[in-house]
Order: sequence, then structure tokens, then C-alpha cells
Amino acid sequence: MESLQHIRVVLDRTSHPGNIGSAARAMKVMGLTELHLVSPERFPDSRATALASSADDLLEHARVCTRLDDALADCTLVLGTSARRRAVDPPLLDARQAAARLVAHSGPAALLFGTEKSGLDNAALDRCHGLVSIPTGDAYMSLNLAQAVQVLCYELHLAARAAGSSAVNVNPQREVASHERMEVFFDRLERTLAAIRFSTPGQNETLHRRLRRLFLRAAPDDDELNMLNGILSRTLRLAGADEREQD
Amino acid sequence: MESLQHIRVVLDRTSHPGNIGSAARAMKVMGLTELHLVSPERFPDSRATALASSADDLLEHARVCTRLDDALADCTLVLGTSARRRAVDPPLLDARQAAARLVAHSGPAALLFGTEKSGLDNAALDRCHGLVSIPTGDAYMSLNLAQAVQVLCYELHLAARAAGSSAVNVNPQREVASHERMEVFFDRLERTLAAIRFSTPGQNETLHRRLRRLFLRAAPDDDELNMLNGILSRTLRLAGADEREQD
Repeated sequence: MESLQHIRVVLDRTSHPGNIGSAARAMKVMGLTELHLVSPERFPDSRATALASSADDLLEHARVCTRLDDALADCTLVLGTSARRRAVDPPLLDARQAAARLVAHSGPAALLFGTEKSGLDNAALDRCHGLVSIPTGDAYMSLNLAQAVQVLCYELHLAARAAGSSAVNVNPQREVASHERMEVFFDRLERTLAAIRFSTPGQNETLHRRLRRLFLRAAPDDDELNMLNGILSRTLRLAGADEREQD
Repeated sequence: MESLQHIRVVLDRTSHPGNIGSAARAMKVMGLTELHLVSPERFPDSRATALASSADDLLEHARVCTRLDDALADCTLVLGTSARRRAVDPPLLDARQAAARLVAHSGPAALLFGTEKSGLDNAALDRCHGLVSIPTGDAYMSLNLAQAVQVLCYELHLAARAAGSSAVNVNPQREVASHERMEVFFDRLERTLAAIRFSTPGQNETLHRRLRRLFLRAAPDDDELNMLNGILSRTLRLAGADEREQD
């Protein structure tokens, strides 16, 4: 996995301390650590600490600046988040594109968020190499600050994973039972249905084919097949039928 | 853009009304409208309304149920969010895979979130066709409820966009049996195993959960479920057990 250490989150003049705390939590969960706060209205604050939960270390190490330019000083890439568009806006990226660009960047980079009420002002927009817009529906487009930070940190995490190793597999392969074992099971199933007189031997071809399709779709593993075979054996005994073969 | 109207968000026994409000806002921004609340600790509540902001209409139209099964009754796909993994858990999807599957599903579908403290309990997990895990860093893996809802609603929105613009689905959806019918089947299966003395009532919880897992994975349609129910009825009669209910 590619590192996210070179990417800082910059919150410009945040009003609600709770949003700072939620942002810290979102960052830490997604593997980001560098939080810069430009003239926060209230910080430190107990509400920030409460919402940060176990990400309170990010708050302790957060860098507080009075001027935006101080927070961005050493950055060679600045992307600002914005819902609005104006004539002279920088190029617009969606969240996923922005994350890929930030992760691929080799120097210090900033992801910049404006105030809750009005977003980034013109001075801040003019410092951005690009703008980021989070795709939303048309009816209601207003994510709050903490939610916007969450979505972008999530995309940064995925971008870092993708950059580090192409295939992320969260689903370890199950060991599906062999064709041979499935055939033994299907044979026993057919005999069981005959024994309980749910079907007659040689007939009901459609029934058996539909059951095959169902169980092949379920793709049982060996343990599950043992369980199913056990149920059939018990039913066969109850029906007074001999087990003609074992597996 | 593909519709998200068939997908409901189900919040199971949420403690903090603020999380319900934030969830509603996250949903509305991303184009989701169907919110189901199972036994919320406090609802309606002014904190929910405050955090919902302009998504207060979702709260007004939210369906409040006392039982999880009522919230899921007509669903043919249920995906649950979970950070934990256990031996008999359903297949695990990441947020993006889960969103694609929910959007592609043709019937009513549910995205299910557990409590803030402990997530989904075993009874809820046993009702899921699959589990969703949001990729996170290794150091700190705990998103709060509202953040998890936000990330998944965002992925659902992207998946709906992608589905709207992509090629025709060559794999027609099967009409999968509803949650309600599956529960009737599982109940009958359990009684049948007791009747043939493959299991004893109240015991063998693991056995039943593994069978649930297997048949939920197979996702039988109505005809297949009729066939399976027929086999169980026949077996019950053979074992001398009464059918205590019909479906």
C-alpha cells in the first residue's frame, strides 16, 4: 500500500468543533495523519475530542495556523473542495480522480476544505491547482463538512491501496467441493427423494435438474456437503431404505 | 442513471438520534429515499431533525418497525455492514462491490446497519445474503455509524451512475424468493431436522446457521422454494410429524 503521509487535510476557518473531531476520525480510519487547521473558531474543544474518539492523537498533533498560506507553504499540489463553479475556477476533478492525483503526487500535497457556510473563498480558490467535486444526486447537493472529509479520505485510502497493489481481495476463496463429491451427493439426493416418495426413479428429470442447478449455484464446500449428506443419510434410514454406497 | 428507489437503508436499534439525522442527509444527497428504522432508541428527536438539515422529509417518511423481519419482509437481497468476521459469516463484499450488487438487483433490497456499540447481532447476520466491509487502514478501523452510511450511499450513487451509462445487462435477474418466504422455509427446515432427529430443538445452532448460509447463497426463486418446501413436507409426514403451519 502506497503511503498517505505526504497528504495533509487542511480545514479553513471551521465553525463547529464537532466537524474537526469527525474529520480526525475519518482521516485516521482511512490512514491519514496530517491535519492542519487554519484559524478554527474553537479549538481545542471537548466536542472535537468527543467526536474524534480514538483519533484524538490527530487533534493533539494538529498544526494550527493563522494564515492559509502557512498551512500550504511547502505544498506542491493543492486541491480544494467546492460545490460551486465559477467562470475562472481551476479544473474540476471528481473525488476519485482527485484521490488518484493526490496519491500519485511525489511532494507535499494538500486537500483543502472551506467553511461550513460558504466553502472556499476566492483567495483560497486561487491557491488551488484543481477543484474536487463529490458526485451527488440532483435533488439535494449539500454534504456537510465532516461527510465531505469522510468521502474523500475513503477515496484516498482506496487510491493508496490501488497504487500499492493492484488487486485488493477481501474475500478469501472458499474451497468448493469437487465435481466428484457433488455427483455422489446428487445421486444420494435422487435416491432419498425416491425413498420418501417425493419422486419416482427415472422420472421427474426436471425436478432433479432444478435441484442440481440450485445446489451448484450454492457451491457448497466440503464441510457443508458433509452436513447435507448427513441429512440425506438420516432421511434414508428413516424411510427404511438401505444406503447402497458410502462416500 | 439507474434508480436507487428499490434500495432501502435499514438502521437496527440506533442509539443516537443524531446518527439517524446524518444518515438521512447522506442518503438524500446521494439520491436514496427509503429509510427504515427498527426500534430506534429515540425517534423522532430534535437532534435527528437538526442533523438531517434539508433531508427532514426522509425522516418524516421513514418507516419505523419493531421487528427487523418487518423491515426486511419483502426484500430479496439483504446486505449487512460488519467489521467483524466469524466462522459462519456470509460472503464478504467491499463497499464498491456491494453497491454494484444492490444497484443491479431487480427487487426490493436492503442495506442493513447494526447498533453503534456492537453492530449487527447474530440474528441480523443470519438474515443477510452478504456482508459489506468498508476498506480502512490497519491502525484504527472504527468508522461511526453515520460515516459508514455516508461511504455506502456515496458508492451506491456512483454505482447507479455507472449502471445508467453502461451496456445492457446480459444476465437477466431471477425472481428470488422474499425474505419472508425464506424465513418460513428455514422454520420448516429446522422442524424437519428435529423430526428426523438429525438435530435436537434449541440445540445445533451452528448447524442451522450454516444451512441458512448455504440456502441464502443459493438464493432460490419461488418455484425452487416450493420444491424444497415440498420435500420437507413429505419428509415431515414420513417422520410422523404434523405440519404446524402452511405457507
